[in-house]
Amino acid sequence: MANENSANPAAIRHLIEGELAIFLSAQKKYLESIGSELTPAADALSSFLLDGGKRLRPLFAYFGFIGAGGTHSQEVIRACASLELLQACALIHDDLMDGSDTRRGKPAIHKHFEKLHNQESAVGSSVGFGQSAAILLGDLALVYSDLALHQSGIKSDVLPQVLAVHDEMRIELMAGQFLDVYEQTRSSHTVERALTIARYKSGKYTIERPLHFGASLATTDKNLLVDVTSHYSSYGLPLGEAFQLRDDLLGVFGDPELTGKPAGDDLREGKRTVLVAMAQESMSSADIKEFESHFGKADLDSAGIEKLRSIITDSGAPMHVENLITELTNTAIQALDTPSIVEASRQVLSELAIIATKRNL
Amino acid sequence: MANENSANPAAIRHLIEGELAIFLSAQKKYLESIGSELTPAADALSSFLLDGGKRLRPLFAYFGFIGAGGTHSQEVIRACASLELLQACALIHDDLMDGSDTRRGKPAIHKHFEKLHNQESAVGSSVGFGQSAAILLGDLALVYSDLALHQSGIKSDVLPQVLAVHDEMRIELMAGQFLDVYEQTRSSHTVERALTIARYKSGKYTIERPLHFGASLATTDKNLLVDVTSHYSSYGLPLGEAFQLRDDLLGVFGDPELTGKPAGDDLREGKRTVLVAMAQESMSSADIKEFESHFGKADLDSAGIEKLRSIITDSGAPMHVENLITELTNTAIQALDTPSIVEASRQVLSELAIIATKRNL
Repeated sequence: MANENSANPAAIRHLIEGELAIFLSAQKKYLESIGSELTPAADALSSFLLDGGKRLRPLFAYFGFIGAGGTHSQEVIRACASLELLQACALIHDDLMDGSDTRRGKPAIHKHFEKLHNQESAVGSSVGFGQSAAILLGDLALVYSDLALHQSGIKSDVLPQVLAVHDEMRIELMAGQFLDVYEQTRSSHTVERALTIARYKSGKYTIERPLHFGASLATTDKNLLVDVTSHYSSYGLPLGEAFQLRDDLLGVFGDPELTGKPAGDDLREGKRTVLVAMAQESMSSADIKEFESHFGKADLDSAGIEKLRSIITDSGAPMHVENLITELTNTAIQALDTPSIVEASRQVLSELAIIATKRNL
Repeated sequence: MANENSANPAAIRHLIEGELAIFLSAQKKYLESIGSELTPAADALSSFLLDGGKRLRPLFAYFGFIGAGGTHSQEVIRACASLELLQACALIHDDLMDGSDTRRGKPAIHKHFEKLHNQESAVGSSVGFGQSAAILLGDLALVYSDLALHQSGIKSDVLPQVLAVHDEMRIELMAGQFLDVYEQTRSSHTVERALTIARYKSGKYTIERPLHFGASLATTDKNLLVDVTSHYSSYGLPLGEAFQLRDDLLGVFGDPELTGKPAGDDLREGKRTVLVAMAQESMSSADIKEFESHFGKADLDSAGIEKLRSIITDSGAPMHVENLITELTNTAIQALDTPSIVEASRQVLSELAIIATKRNL
């Protein structure tokens, strides 16, 4: 059973979701023992975590573990599942900061609590209540990710090195988020800066660091660890970039049915992505002027979105980005060709590379 | 040296601040290695943490450690200092949620970044940038508190039990904060609910849990741990309540010079404290009407503040609260009278009880 599972990402995803459900149900009970007013908070977090998500970070962590010679266990599934709670914090706070009101086709957390406030005709500002609830639920999800990891039952000899990778990953994430927020306040932009932001905010955090996290769960042999993590970086860094570039394309051209976000959401929010920076480098000055007059306008309508899309397409950037994604994904997959990574995991990581960067993500 | 220090809260506070400064300086370097745009984030966090603060939580943790039989070490100072980073997260997010623009006589973090944005005539909304920066700096401080604890060098045999206390403390804090935010949206209030919120948001988190955290650093002997933590609860729970009641009084009547917050800040923010709930229970219906017409109004002027203060004073609640503080503090100090807590620590905890609840805090 363990061996069958350990080479099957769909089965592992299922196990991860099972552990998340058990964890959240226990936490809901605990919150309700403090006060029944916490039920909506527990429910919102459960629904946010269980009603969707590709579980990419836990999957990379798990197959990073298997690839470094680890043997399947429930404890490791739990530890890997904890990364999904960290991701919940990142998304809840990100949606609030971006003013992004939809997530997976449903109201974002701040919008959900704003609506609850309105429905109850409660005292004070609905918007303010929604914002506060989203700040606190993000904080709670961050603490839960720690708790889930600490309670997972992983061996105490690997715990310190696992915590070290986990901390580094989270600091990189917050630093990348800060750079992103700061970049939106600048009047000029470069592809290079956009790449740095994407690398920290998303690429490393989604692929390279989860693989390292998994490896650190597998062995305390320093030489083995240094060797396998360096191969994981050779795979994870280009793949992380490709993943982010696909996200950039989906944010502009993606089908709302598949992205769970409104069409052209990144254009309305004025996200300074690598795609946008590349497009701007190749635009005529007339196009730049036209572009900047619509980009980031909260009331952007579908005609405005089409206009921006066609300017971006005309710049040639989307085709260039598609080629880059293919190239980076190939580089990543080639980096798997090493005996340092256990065979069964190499096959799955090769599949996950396609899943993380495919068009209809 | 160690023995002298270990019974002197001022010396311990000094050591805690030294470790915080070293930690933050190393983290600043790391952030700047990612991007120089992160310098203002690192500086703001350093200034927030180093330019003030009573270090109550680290002090209770440290003397909880000594009281449970621990021997002074730099590693333990570092572990206790990490609680100050958690407190930074709580304050930064709290100020943002409350719209409280001043902290220790200086702009709150969201206001600080709003001002930076204005000074640079940067693109987009200054208020939005300030909010996003505060969300991310709070998140970063939360992750830093983990990192500081993990890197402290405490022994690996106590690590799992320390993490367990730490997680429980943080979940209680976030739950208390959520209850508080929710309470502000209700149209009726009770003393009982206000007490529950104060207990989770502030009382347990400031005193009882830091003591437990310290005890869990000191010994892996389960019997000893159960015994000493139960005495710490007998001391910490009433003292936590007294601490919060003092905070309620200061929020209404405190001197801005001493609180670092504008006069009557809690009245302007409409904070539903235990003091306010008690006052309302004893107000005439005319006073309740008058009170509610001013309470929580953002444009409340000094005449309005005086009006609210005199209604509260007339209710008799402040005198009742003063008596309660004295009673609870005495109960706490009496609970120290046990050989289960090491003598040197009992003396200091008795002093800290006065410091945490005195009028000119």
